[in-house]
Amino acid sequence: MGDRANASRRTERQPRLLGALQGQSLDPPPIWLMRQAGRYLPEYRAVREKAGGFLDLVYTPALAAEVTLQPVRRFGLDAAILFSDILVVPHALGQSVSFLEGEGPKLEPVTCVSDLKRLNRDGTGEKFAHVFETVARVRQEMPADTALIGFCGAPWTVATYMVGGCGSADQADARLWAYRDPAGFASLIDILVETSIAYLDGQVRAGADVVQIFDSWAGSLPEDAFDTWVVAPTRRIVEELEARHPHVPVIGFPRGAGVNAARYVEATGVEGFGCDTGVPLETMRALAGRGVTVQGNLDPLLLVAGGPALEARVRQTLEALQGVPFIFNLGHGVVPQTPPENVARLVALVRADNGKR
Amino acid sequence: MGDRANASRRTERQPRLLGALQGQSLDPPPIWLMRQAGRYLPEYRAVREKAGGFLDLVYTPALAAEVTLQPVRRFGLDAAILFSDILVVPHALGQSVSFLEGEGPKLEPVTCVSDLKRLNRDGTGEKFAHVFETVARVRQEMPADTALIGFCGAPWTVATYMVGGCGSADQADARLWAYRDPAGFASLIDILVETSIAYLDGQVRAGADVVQIFDSWAGSLPEDAFDTWVVAPTRRIVEELEARHPHVPVIGFPRGAGVNAARYVEATGVEGFGCDTGVPLETMRALAGRGVTVQGNLDPLLLVAGGPALEARVRQTLEALQGVPFIFNLGHGVVPQTPPENVARLVALVRADNGKR
Repeated sequence: MGDRANASRRTERQPRLLGALQGQSLDPPPIWLMRQAGRYLPEYRAVREKAGGFLDLVYTPALAAEVTLQPVRRFGLDAAILFSDILVVPHALGQSVSFLEGEGPKLEPVTCVSDLKRLNRDGTGEKFAHVFETVARVRQEMPADTALIGFCGAPWTVATYMVGGCGSADQADARLWAYRDPAGFASLIDILVETSIAYLDGQVRAGADVVQIFDSWAGSLPEDAFDTWVVAPTRRIVEELEARHPHVPVIGFPRGAGVNAARYVEATGVEGFGCDTGVPLETMRALAGRGVTVQGNLDPLLLVAGGPALEARVRQTLEALQGVPFIFNLGHGVVPQTPPENVARLVALVRADNGKR
Repeated sequence: MGDRANASRRTERQPRLLGALQGQSLDPPPIWLMRQAGRYLPEYRAVREKAGGFLDLVYTPALAAEVTLQPVRRFGLDAAILFSDILVVPHALGQSVSFLEGEGPKLEPVTCVSDLKRLNRDGTGEKFAHVFETVARVRQEMPADTALIGFCGAPWTVATYMVGGCGSADQADARLWAYRDPAGFASLIDILVETSIAYLDGQVRAGADVVQIFDSWAGSLPEDAFDTWVVAPTRRIVEELEARHPHVPVIGFPRGAGVNAARYVEATGVEGFGCDTGVPLETMRALAGRGVTVQGNLDPLLLVAGGPALEARVRQTLEALQGVPFIFNLGHGVVPQTPPENVARLVALVRADNGKR
């Protein structure tokens, strides 16, 4: 957080998202939405259809840039987030990854230390290059006051997919490996820390203004495992990125961290903390009091429902977080059945509320 | 909690679990495990095979009592928990419920107010009677110092299955109904509150010493929805049960409640609070300081892994919760791949640790 003061070297046209991440309380707060590019948008589905497979879309810069830009154009959001997937990292490491329609990702599991030999830490360049080109294209096509967010999956969450071979309710395979052979599992985490640093570094060099680390499966770990597998690897990434790019803030999103949120904020050094839907507004305010910018946390299903329930909760959120550094977002990604008009309404609500209080 | 003092009328041979729930700090703490009767036990699989379908097992008192007793006999646990399923309530209400091998439950979904007419609130007696007979058999066959725990699913969690028709990662259907038509959804919750009271009341009359309310999907709700759909219905059940059976303590288990745990404890009036694996030991201690007996929260996967990691965590847990009212348990149910010998080792560890500190 120490670099916030220096950030004033940036021009006044800097993205509002950066202002919030430098500790400013903005009214209205900047707004973007996790998974804002996606299947709920007809223009996304049109591009997706002509791309072939999901990974073809991710690795074709012209198409990936297009879908990254779509929600920014349609809704005038304060930030674009790179269209990609957290499984690009294992894929670039040489693990077999496929996305079957309606089934979620499938990976050839890595289940023990000797399997790690199958990963090629020096071979990520080619696949990453496509992603970096997407970032560069998006940055070039967007106005300077719209932020571009790069991202990666956190080592723990990426490891749960690499070890389990698919998404699972309890991440049993990764957790068992970590209990039975902590040193071996740490080798996998080390590879992911190192590769994630290179991946985020490349995204920043290509033009990302901010990066977010998604730890979707951070919840349900006991606090000691949380410290070892969630907090420590994240801190290593944050520290290295801050050393290389002191003006690029990092947002951490350990979904389901519950009461472990405070230790995460304290120990990782992230500038922004993404709150899932289960974090009460008063807790968000308390976290902001610890010097972090809070982001979140509208229920994505409330965005599907729309109507007075949505309006009431948006007002309540804006009021509860008035005067603290805050970025309006959802508590999880936009779901496919979201009516795009509800997103437009949300953006209008957040901005129209400005000055009414 | 006001009834704790009166509970001294019980004889000295009362189950140690009750002592802990009356606020006593016991050394060693009483121990039982969620889903302690189940597929990880060969003797369970033998009974399961001859029972036909899963619901046949649940509704055949001789068999259900047998599998309830198996883990108590094998491990000498401090409590038995009725072998049943949280979906007995919708099934008894007349909803179609089936359990397909390896697939999880399937229900004919109830998705709007007019669907509620399909539920027969006065028709639960016959199915409940089988369960009550199981409870009576178990109580009769167990020594008086082993507690018998009855249970039900919390209205919110049961509703997520009734509305969604199956388990889901985000309980989207129930949440959407609750947002779009809160009054209609409240009618469903009201039916579940009323039916759950009758169901738990019957279990207590049949011999249950304690009841637990399982709210497996309490996590991820925003705090206002948590108050409305998790806390308020649970409080209604707890209040009515305490009015009818002041000496029967209630344990609440809102899995994933995160920072909402404190408001749940405060507002529901439960005597026991079940902590999931994500609740840090220091938070358990703090919750115990609010006058509730804490229960939990070993990672079920650590029980699969066994070895020194298990031993270290058990010792750490016993030490952290020394001097507060505490029941040793897991943070979630026993998983099928658990080696029974690890359960035996766990019980020995918890009891052998007695006096060493």
